[in-house]
Amino acid sequence: MSKEKSVGLVETKYFTFAEPPNELALEFGGKLGPVTIAYETYGALNSDKTNAILICHALSADAHAAGYYGDEKDPGWWDGMIGPGNAFDTDKHFIICSNVIGGCKGSTGPSSVNPATGKPYALDFPSITIADMVHAQRHLIDSLGIDKLMCVVGASMGGMQALQWVASYPERVRSAIPIATALKHSPQQIAFNEVVRQSVMADTAWREGNYYEYGQPEKGLALARMIGHITFMSVQSMEEKFSRRLKNVNYNFKFGADFEVEGYLRYKGDSFVKRFDANSYLYITKAIDYFDLSAGKLIPNGKKVDTRFLIISFRSDWLYPSFQSQEIVRELKMRHVDATYCELRSTYGHDAFLVEMEEQRDLVRHFLDKTFNGYEVVREYDI
Amino acid sequence: MSKEKSVGLVETKYFTFAEPPNELALEFGGKLGPVTIAYETYGALNSDKTNAILICHALSADAHAAGYYGDEKDPGWWDGMIGPGNAFDTDKHFIICSNVIGGCKGSTGPSSVNPATGKPYALDFPSITIADMVHAQRHLIDSLGIDKLMCVVGASMGGMQALQWVASYPERVRSAIPIATALKHSPQQIAFNEVVRQSVMADTAWREGNYYEYGQPEKGLALARMIGHITFMSVQSMEEKFSRRLKNVNYNFKFGADFEVEGYLRYKGDSFVKRFDANSYLYITKAIDYFDLSAGKLIPNGKKVDTRFLIISFRSDWLYPSFQSQEIVRELKMRHVDATYCELRSTYGHDAFLVEMEEQRDLVRHFLDKTFNGYEVVREYDI
Repeated sequence: MSKEKSVGLVETKYFTFAEPPNELALEFGGKLGPVTIAYETYGALNSDKTNAILICHALSADAHAAGYYGDEKDPGWWDGMIGPGNAFDTDKHFIICSNVIGGCKGSTGPSSVNPATGKPYALDFPSITIADMVHAQRHLIDSLGIDKLMCVVGASMGGMQALQWVASYPERVRSAIPIATALKHSPQQIAFNEVVRQSVMADTAWREGNYYEYGQPEKGLALARMIGHITFMSVQSMEEKFSRRLKNVNYNFKFGADFEVEGYLRYKGDSFVKRFDANSYLYITKAIDYFDLSAGKLIPNGKKVDTRFLIISFRSDWLYPSFQSQEIVRELKMRHVDATYCELRSTYGHDAFLVEMEEQRDLVRHFLDKTFNGYEVVREYDI
Repeated sequence: MSKEKSVGLVETKYFTFAEPPNELALEFGGKLGPVTIAYETYGALNSDKTNAILICHALSADAHAAGYYGDEKDPGWWDGMIGPGNAFDTDKHFIICSNVIGGCKGSTGPSSVNPATGKPYALDFPSITIADMVHAQRHLIDSLGIDKLMCVVGASMGGMQALQWVASYPERVRSAIPIATALKHSPQQIAFNEVVRQSVMADTAWREGNYYEYGQPEKGLALARMIGHITFMSVQSMEEKFSRRLKNVNYNFKFGADFEVEGYLRYKGDSFVKRFDANSYLYITKAIDYFDLSAGKLIPNGKKVDTRFLIISFRSDWLYPSFQSQEIVRELKMRHVDATYCELRSTYGHDAFLVEMEEQRDLVRHFLDKTFNGYEVVREYDI
């Protein structure tokens, strides 16, 4: 999107709450509080508060989904989907994106100060789940006076939150758009998260999580991200981007980055260390691995749910393959929930949700218009 | 295979040579010498020396392909394919398996003593390639007085060696069986090898390769192997083996092995440290990444090659997907080389070459009999 269609300058807001008596009760039994949630909003809430759309982010993203901070060069992570006249249309919708608890982008997480000790929580941070993230978001939505969300949308872990919203609070979600996600992690997905965690924990600089006064476990966290990046791309997108091009032609190798793909992964790993907390990576990947809404846990048997669903997957995504989206569809159809599904042909692998804007925009726009206005949208900007 | 059909007790032999003047000339320009090759043989060489089959091993295996050492409990890594009456039939064939140079199982590698210093080579070991491994094997074959190999066979990196034998010495190979392999690594395959290397090198115990007096970089090498293991299995085989079963049910997780799949990977990683040298892992993965016989390098244009090929891949193998085997077939057919191809339906992923014995046996037996005896083999032992 060009800057002309952007939501323009934005800023992050903070909401702090303590669930009575004074902490958030957690799914696995612990408590956390007080809890701060970092969030951004774009567009305006209408007078009857029926136009709110909640965007849920993936593993390492944040509340900054659209627009620019001051003289920032790159916009928010889903700017291509959000703005005046866009799929999430700030001329019509009130859009909210909040950072998950357990994260490190303004919401309470393991790098936050533990009020009991005055030091960062580190591994004293309690175990959190996707349901806890959504529970905390619900407090934010309550505080904004919104009774029912027009839509909850998200890709990857964001899609899990969208599903969890329906499982936890079906009466508060009019529609949901889970993208490139799953009802539960397969053992292969757990295995990839496990090697990511092991990468962090194998670094002696991790110090059992107590690294805050010394600096991040840089090597381990960079390696974790390198592994992640392989799973985000497809065989084809890597072939197109790098093929076997050499970065260095010194054949007397001493294990430098000889191939371009190696240099790219190292660069991605190193940049990640500057922007993401290692312990947050551990907590959030565990929350994802424990997520499981299969076998009737999404919609309990006999329960009537009116939420309408649009499910999207990408053919080349091997991290969250299409069969997992089809399982969501099957689960919904078996419970007589209104669901429509589309597999997009993108070659970008799991990354597609961040880069394949055109078709996603079209699907979302059409779905929201059909659901809430009862007519087909006129495609205005297609090539 | 039961012990009755085994080749029985075996032992590793050693062959040391120095290519005149006194070192092996390497593809990327260095020299190495003297060179020792660890190897095993099963069956007997016939008088005209026409019944020799060379088995090439994969990344972390060794010369011990069949039979038992003393009171060893488990046989060699491809015991199910080798023995009296088996596909590689010790009643008829003379079977050779040698450890690659760069390895750590008896052949000269980075953990060997550098005669110039009296200490392990470590990173003073020169860069080696698949062609260098095959070049060294050729010296072994020469020393055994074998002019022409009846067959060169191998899976994964072993398949690359089989292809390289034909590229380097086509007149010395009557038939070749590359299994679950490729003409070259894709950027995704390079990327997986790169994170494997980074795992080792991120461990401070690696000490830039000079760890021999202190012990292995255990955490890094274990992590490297964990990553490898994920790529060896398929989504389906992991689902069948582990599903989402929990090993521990303590939800207040502190990043232990909660799921069975996590425990399995940790176990596999820890055992690997006891049996494989970290620097060998670095050198061999680099050799694999640099391997490239695509675009006419396997069979130069206009060159007549009489070698007959059987190419095998496994449908669920996503590390060396079938399309890469099909590229080998296409390359051969375009050069008018006799090649037959079969994709097996195994669900075991890349591991299939080690576990799916029945169908591989049948294919190999049939191919060898058809090629060398001109008749169809009688299936004697099938269920």
